[in-house]
Formats: sequence, structure tokens, C-alpha cells
Amino acid sequence: MNAVLSEPEAGKPSVPYMLAGRVSDEKTVVNISGGITIGGEDVCIIAGPCSIESRDQIMESAAHVKKAGATILRGGAFKPRTSPYAFQGMGVEGLKLLREAGDAFRMPIITEIMDSDDLAVIEEYSDIIQVGARNCQNFSLLRKLGRAKRPVLLKRGMMTTVVELLMSAEYVLAGGNRNVILCERGIRTFESETRNTLDISAVPVLQQKTHLPVIVDPSHAAGTWKLIHPLSLAAIAAGADGLMIEVHPDPDHALSDGMQSLKPERFSDLMIRMAQMARLMGRSIPGSC
Amino acid sequence: MNAVLSEPEAGKPSVPYMLAGRVSDEKTVVNISGGITIGGEDVCIIAGPCSIESRDQIMESAAHVKKAGATILRGGAFKPRTSPYAFQGMGVEGLKLLREAGDAFRMPIITEIMDSDDLAVIEEYSDIIQVGARNCQNFSLLRKLGRAKRPVLLKRGMMTTVVELLMSAEYVLAGGNRNVILCERGIRTFESETRNTLDISAVPVLQQKTHLPVIVDPSHAAGTWKLIHPLSLAAIAAGADGLMIEVHPDPDHALSDGMQSLKPERFSDLMIRMAQMARLMGRSIPGSC
Amino acid sequence: MNAVLSEPEAGKPSVPYMLAGRVSDEKTVVNISGGITIGGEDVCIIAGPCSIESRDQIMESAAHVKKAGATILRGGAFKPRTSPYAFQGMGVEGLKLLREAGDAFRMPIITEIMDSDDLAVIEEYSDIIQVGARNCQNFSLLRKLGRAKRPVLLKRGMMTTVVELLMSAEYVLAGGNRNVILCERGIRTFESETRNTLDISAVPVLQQKTHLPVIVDPSHAAGTWKLIHPLSLAAIAAGADGLMIEVHPDPDHALSDGMQSLKPERFSDLMIRMAQMARLMGRSIPGSC
Amino acid sequence: MNAVLSEPEAGKPSVPYMLAGRVSDEKTVVNISGGITIGGEDVCIIAGPCSIESRDQIMESAAHVKKAGATILRGGAFKPRTSPYAFQGMGVEGLKLLREAGDAFRMPIITEIMDSDDLAVIEEYSDIIQVGARNCQNFSLLRKLGRAKRPVLLKRGMMTTVVELLMSAEYVLAGGNRNVILCERGIRTFESETRNTLDISAVPVLQQKTHLPVIVDPSHAAGTWKLIHPLSLAAIAAGADGLMIEVHPDPDHALSDGMQSLKPERFSDLMIRMAQMARLMGRSIPGSC
Repeated sequence: MNAVLSEPEAGKPSVPYMLAGRVSDEKTVVNISGGITIGGEDVCIIAGPCSIESRDQIMESAAHVKKAGATILRGGAFKPRTSPYAFQGMGVEGLKLLREAGDAFRMPIITEIMDSDDLAVIEEYSDIIQVGARNCQNFSLLRKLGRAKRPVLLKRGMMTTVVELLMSAEYVLAGGNRNVILCERGIRTFESETRNTLDISAVPVLQQKTHLPVIVDPSHAAGTWKLIHPLSLAAIAAGADGLMIEVHPDPDHALSDGMQSLKPERFSDLMIRMAQMARLMGRSIPGSC
Repeated sequence: MNAVLSEPEAGKPSVPYMLAGRVSDEKTVVNISGGITIGGEDVCIIAGPCSIESRDQIMESAAHVKKAGATILRGGAFKPRTSPYAFQGMGVEGLKLLREAGDAFRMPIITEIMDSDDLAVIEEYSDIIQVGARNCQNFSLLRKLGRAKRPVLLKRGMMTTVVELLMSAEYVLAGGNRNVILCERGIRTFESETRNTLDISAVPVLQQKTHLPVIVDPSHAAGTWKLIHPLSLAAIAAGADGLMIEVHPDPDHALSDGMQSLKPERFSDLMIRMAQMARLMGRSIPGSC
Repeated sequence: MNAVLSEPEAGKPSVPYMLAGRVSDEKTVVNISGGITIGGEDVCIIAGPCSIESRDQIMESAAHVKKAGATILRGGAFKPRTSPYAFQGMGVEGLKLLREAGDAFRMPIITEIMDSDDLAVIEEYSDIIQVGARNCQNFSLLRKLGRAKRPVLLKRGMMTTVVELLMSAEYVLAGGNRNVILCERGIRTFESETRNTLDISAVPVLQQKTHLPVIVDPSHAAGTWKLIHPLSLAAIAAGADGLMIEVHPDPDHALSDGMQSLKPERFSDLMIRMAQMARLMGRSIPGSC
Repeated sequence: MNAVLSEPEAGKPSVPYMLAGRVSDEKTVVNISGGITIGGEDVCIIAGPCSIESRDQIMESAAHVKKAGATILRGGAFKPRTSPYAFQGMGVEGLKLLREAGDAFRMPIITEIMDSDDLAVIEEYSDIIQVGARNCQNFSLLRKLGRAKRPVLLKRGMMTTVVELLMSAEYVLAGGNRNVILCERGIRTFESETRNTLDISAVPVLQQKTHLPVIVDPSHAAGTWKLIHPLSLAAIAAGADGLMIEVHPDPDHALSDGMQSLKPERFSDLMIRMAQMARLMGRSIPGSC
């Protein structure tokens, strides 16, 4: 159980991330469900609120982002909060509401895992399992996700290097789960105008080092909705395989991350621009007009 | 379970870390076992190898550090490693060897928890439960440690601010476990001469903000044994309540962190100097001559 | 001379960078020469070698970048080098060669000032005066540039916040020189895959805070030519008013920064893509086809 | 002038900082004046106000710090300020007052140079020339200081690595001025509880790499007087050859850095403790009782 994992077979790249390392032009395309993929020609747009707050809120959010053209619905049920006194998420009840919303609008869903105790229920209800920035080097959790049946979206930690991120992905891959999506979401620096500093260079650096899909979360990087538009376009221009964007029907009253959530109408405008940008990059966003 | 924790009672400081915040001159003294305390007048010296590697290795390590004057024996059984292919620790078997060594040399022991699945066995065998830097914001684990029967030594993450560290401590305190020890172990910066940058100012800053004991781990901060001596003296001079130092009988052949481990004889020399330094600071190191 | 500068008139924004701060939708358009501007509708492309090395090298560089569609020719005559033993630039002789190349290919030129002793000669020969990242808070130099007759391109220091950059611009503006162009060129972080971390968010943040033009230098940010293509496209997508890109006819034998310099043919390819990107953003690159 | 400096002679260490590099146990002892040295057995205490504000203020400051046991008097005449509208220092007039105070209390003086235009007058009046953090990589200034007749105290930049600091020292040394003192004053990190993060490890790292004296400025690192006491003791414990501490007779009304300046009585208390600490480290502070 705590023994050394067996070494991968021969013919692998001579880097410490043998399974994550790129050996050819071939990229991994992760199949979600309903024909949706991440890492192929399409630019995948994941959108939705930071937290699931109520049935109405998640249904309304889903309706909006689906209509605007998003592919996958996001929503947090188990929330990692700096303070024990802050809203900690609706838990399993929220997860079920997210599933309901995903089904109602025919969108795959993604939610974050904080505790391996919740793995079974998240595996049952969610199409993708998200690992948050603070758990990027929670090796116990990663090892368990190596045996999970669902794709894993692994967020880079705020002070995780690109190579460490790949080593964390390696934990999941080495466990047998080959469906890993990487997510750049900003690193911690001295600059305080933004919540974190979006490391846009990490997108092409990762694309050169690994065959795994790479997406960008501009919401947590920026910490303010005012920067989501330019950062989203920049991410696609830099070669990202997708974006994860926080959208809330009423950001001013959101229980978490309201400041960085887009209003539905702004998200619709952004979708139009992102679709144009994707085309310029030789790609497409399927749901968009 | 995921509900908001109840707010603490009135009369608490008006900071978000209500239980960890300092309201008076009084400091928390954490009782370990056998009359040993952290946070009182004594400067507590925790020493031992990074990983438990064998019965001989941990017994020899314990003999050395005890003789030199260390108070508590450290040793990793479950190891957080960047690579899934690196030595992951001896697990429960190692933990039992650590207990045996602690008993043989009458020293309380401390080991790191990586997974809440191991909580029961660690609670059974270890006197202190260590939370590593990478789990500093693993809120699920922290909440569970709030119900643990053992004191918790919480290491600051490489990307964690002083206030965030206090908020993480608050998770444990709010759960009912009032025995929390904080540990500064270096933060991540641009400087690469050291593995991390020891934030020596965090010691007095924490002492001003919280009543909890604050210790320093110079080994992980420096990443090289050559700096342990000056950094240990500096930590006591800055007001630290203790030190956690990696000592290995044969650093060149250590399975982890050999570069930053002191040889026993160097540790003995350092103990003499630390005892002098403690006296200058109006404190003492009980085990030392 | 060392007296406090007089406070600017009323009606200015209530930020400490009163002259640099944005008060309306109006942006500053800096006129260079020959009808070329920075900050208007056009996306300005500055290109050329890191250092001027010989007459042949700068003439060949100029021919290439002009043909590919660059607007302004760059070349370092006075080079800030970490080591006193490294090539320090050709000095005034190099500056004259740069002027000759600019005239031959009808391109305005830009070169870096390191020492105010060189101000008169740089003012005489160069169309734009560049302040390097290491001099971003060299307040004596900035104050002297406030009296210079040429536009100033001010690079953000690797340790300079966005607000500090604006305060440095304020030194030049307060001295009477209203032609300041800001340049994001990467900040220093813990990540070592790139020479610096390009802070792409700084582009829209600056656009919101100031009326001054904002350009991006992907070469110094990345430190490797392999990332210039995606970062340049991302910069235009994020709203940059221009780019400064290092191009060398023979990067393998460059006297400085060869690793991060594009070969002429790669630059030509990039120009085509940048022109498409500029069009998508409702702008244009005049020299490009 | 911009030519490559000639390579140093054979027999030098194989590091890029050939003159600054340590080749033996021998350390450089910099002679100031009146028998005062930095880098020898004595721990040198430099104290005084951030800025010289008036004849009374600097005389009073000098009287206080001399009585408490400081060795050298500091005071800024030319002040690097983030804002062009902030107090910029008294200039030459202030420098003459500093000289007067130094003479009156028989203390050598140190002041900062911001502009090489002021080199002659600073050389005339000041015993030591200080280079501030923002000019740590102002290579033009450093090269000119290589020909100065006075010792140079070179502060580490906020984002300068230890090796870059040594390379900057190398500029001065290579110019012929062998009297260079290095000063750690905090680096810029994500932590905001302190103005900068004092890199205490830089003291022993520098001591291992160079023969030059290394001192610590806790005032600019901390940004608050409350941390000066523990940080000063820690610096001596870590092996620093001296300290530079801001002391002001009336911090609440200081024109700059009041928050981080010690009141005279607190400085006197600290001197007593520093003298005890120096003795523990096998050194002494001459002026102290």
C-alpha cells in the first residue's frame, strides 16, 4: 500500500514523469460522456457557479451557460475554504442538484473532491472529478484517483512548478487512470492586483512536455470578473484546450467567489468572441453558434 | 458534516482566527507525554531521521539524538514524495519501529499523517501528529484532526501566508482539539541557493498574533546540512519555542533528504550551542547538559 | 533638484499616479516618427537583435524584420549584463550603426539607456529611449528622462508591481515628458521553466488603470524562442498595443540572448499570424501584408 | 568604456564572481576610519534615521545612537522614493549636516548614492557609500563605484539572487575598489505581514561563498519596529558581521519610514542584548558597555 509503485515499462520518455511525458505528436483526447472530449480539436468550455447554492441557482446557471454554448457544467458541492466559519458547500445534496441540472440540460458535470471519503459518491454522480489547487500535492488522494473510473481534472497548486504538476499527474496515471486533464489557474507571486498571477506560459510549456490536455481557469487566477474576457482570449491564443469559467446568475449575492464570477450576459458575449478566437487557432467550440 | 461550524463564543479576538488569536500575554503550553511540553519555558528539540528505514536505523538515530539532548524523536512512516516512484515510507511497520525506539529511549515520538485513513493507527502509536507543508490547507484532514486525541504539529505550506496558517490551525481548534503547534519550515521564493526561504520573521509575527507554540524546521527550509547550525541558533534568537531537525546516522545512504540531514556528531555540537543560546534567551533545553 | 516636485493640478484622478492614471476612455497615442504611433489602432511590432554586434549583423537584421512587417527596429548598444566580464555592448559606435540601419530601411529605432551620461547621444540618434527592467526604479534616471525630447519605453522591473510601474512612469510624466510607453516583460517567480513569468494579466490591468500604451516583450519573459509564438498571440489577444521581439539572423552565434531570439523565417511566420490576430481584435499591423 | 573588463588573474575561484568568491578561510576586513572596521571580530552597528530632516534631528539622533553604543551613523540625503511627490531628501545640505553630526560624535557616516552625478560630493563627505536595493543591478553606477575612494555598502535587491548580488559586487571589485560590504535587507515574496521577507539564510550562504563582510538591515526587511529586536538578535546568531538599524528621535513624525524606526530608548535596550549575543558568538560590539 505504501510500497513503491512498479516502474513503468521501457520505451517511455527519460523524464521523471514517464507516463505524462510527451513522446510523439500524439495528444491524449479525454472522453467525457455524450461524445464530449477534452484535448481534441474542440476547445472545451466548462462554466457554472463556484458553489451550488440551491436548486434554482444551479438550474438557472445551467440554462444560461448551456444557451451561451458551454460544454460542461461546473459547480462546487464540497468547498475548500480558508476559514472554517465560511460556507463549506452543500455536500452530497448539492452534488445531486448538479447532476439534476446536468441531466436537464444535457451537459456533463464536474465537481471538486476534497476528501477521499467522498470518492464513491462523486464517482457515482459526477462525470469529471476535480482536484483543487490546495490538493495538487495531496499524494494520498491522487493515488486513490488513480483507481477512479472517472477522468480527473488536476489543478496546478499556487506554488507548484510545472514539473511538480506533471509529477502529481503521474500519481494518477501510474495508478491506472489515464484520463487526466491539467489546469493552469494562476500562481502566487508578489503582485497583488490579481488574486494570483496567471502563468500563461505554462500552457505552451505543458503542451511541449506532455500529451495530456491543458485548460485554463481565468476566474481563480484573476479574482475579478473584469479580467476574464481578455484572459480567456489570451488562453485560447496560447493554445489552451479549454477554459473553466465561473458564471453566476447573481454574482452580488453569491455565497463564494462573487467578485470573480461573470454575469450570464457577459458570458454570452465572451462565448461569441471565444468561438472566433478558436476558429483563428484552427479549432472550434461546438456548442457556440 | 459539511455544514458551517458554529461560531465561537463572545469575548474572542476580532480576527478571523478567533480561537488561534492572541488575547493576552498567556501562551498555550502543549503537554506531550512524560512531562514534556512545547510552548513553555523550555526550548523543545525534536530530532531524528526524515524516514524510518529499518529497526537498526531508527534505534541508532534515537540513541544518538537522546544522548545529545533532544526531547522528542521524529521519523516519517508515510512519506509525501513528489514522485510516485520514490520511496514512499515503511508505513505502519515503520510507525511501530518508531514507537519501539521512542519507548526504548523514553522519548515521545512524532510522525506525519498523509491520509485520514491512517488517523486511528497514528493516534494509537504516535504522541504528536504532524501535518506536512503540502497538507497545510487540506481542510478535510484538518477538520478530522480537530477530533483527534493527540496534539497536532501543523507545518506552514510553502505557499501559505501567516494568516492562512492561523486559519488552518483554526480548523483544528474549532473541532475541539486545542493542542496545536505551528511550524515555520521555509516558503517558496525565487532564490534557489536554499530549498526554501526560511521566513525567520514569521516566528515573532506568529508570537504576536497567536498564543500557540511556534517552532522552526531548518532542515526543510535550507535543504542542506551546512546551514542547519546558523539557522537553528537564529531561530532560538528570534524566539522559537522549539526546533525540528533531521539527523541521520549515515546521511550519504539515507533513503530521503540525506543532503539536509546532520550527522550525529554535528548534532551533538549544535545541541551544546543551542543550549547556550536558549539560556541567553532566558529559556532552557532540559535534556542538554 | 532634490526638492519635492510640485503637485499636479486639480481634476486629476485620486490615485498616487495622477498623471498616468486613466480618467476617461481616451488613450494616449505616442507619436514616434514617420507617422508611426504606439497606442492607437495599430498594433506596433518592434523587432531586432538583443545587441548590435556589427554593421552586417544589424543591417541584415533590419532587412529581415522590415520585410516581415515590423514597424520599429530594436538593438542594444549599452547592455546591462549580470557579469562585468560579459559583452557590454558596442556603445556609441553600435548606436550609430543602428541609426544607419534604421535610416536604410526607413524604420524608427529604439535602444536602451543605462547611464544618464549617455542621454545626449541617445537622444540625438535614437527615436525612442528604452529603460530596462533593472532601471525601472532608478528614480534619478527617470527624472532626467522627464526632460528628454524623445518618447520613453519603460520596462517593468522583475520585482516591480503594476502600481510601482505606474509610479515610475509618473516620474517621467511629472518632469514634462508625456510620451511614455509601458512594457510588461515578465516578473520573477519560483517557476524556472521560463526565464521570468509573463504576467499577461498586467496588460488588461494596466489598460484599466492608465491611458498610456502597453506593450509586451515575450522574449525576455520566456527566455526561449520556442514560446515566442504562443505568447505573442496571447499578448495581442489580451489587448497589448504592441510587441517587442528579439530576432537575430544567426541566434546560435549571438553575443547575447541567442536562446530567446527568433530566426528571421520564424519571425516572418509569426508576423502573418499576429496580423490575423490583430484583425480579430479590431486592430491592424500596418507593415504586414 | 563599454569594452569588456579584463579577466582577473589566474589562481582565482572557478565561479563567475572571481574576485568576490571565497578561496580560503581568510575574510576581508574593510577599514572605515578612526580604527573602525567591518568584517573583523567586532559586530558593527550602523544606526540613525532613514532621512536627514534637520540639523536638530540628525544631531539628536547621533547623540542617542552614539550613547547607546552604535559605531557608525546612517542618514539619507538623497532618497529613492516610489512616488515623485514624496519627500526626496535634503540633498547636499543634508549630507553636510550628517558629516557635522558624525564629526561631533566621532562616528564615521554612511549615506546612499542614487546618481553618479553626486559621487564626488558623497566621496568628499561620507565615509561609506551605500548602494540601495533598487540600484543593486545599476551596472553603470557600480562600475563607477569601482573607481571610488570610499568603501561601498551594497544592498541586495528585493528580487536579486545571492549569486546576482555577488556579480554586482564583482562590478565594484573588478573596477579596483576592494572595499565592498554586502547587506541582506529582505526579498520580495507573497507574504505581506512584513514589508519584505528577511532571507536569514543568505547570511551563512554568503559567508560560505564570499570573503566580503555581510551585514543585515532588519528595518527595511520588517517594515515595522516591532520585529527589529528579534530579527537583530537572529541576524547576529546567524553570523552577520553587522547590522544597520533605523532609529529616529520621534518616529511618529518622521518624514520617511517612521513605522519601522526604533525610538532611542528601545534601541538602547536592543544594544545591550545585541552585545550579549555578540559575546555568545565569540565576537564583540566595541561601543557597548
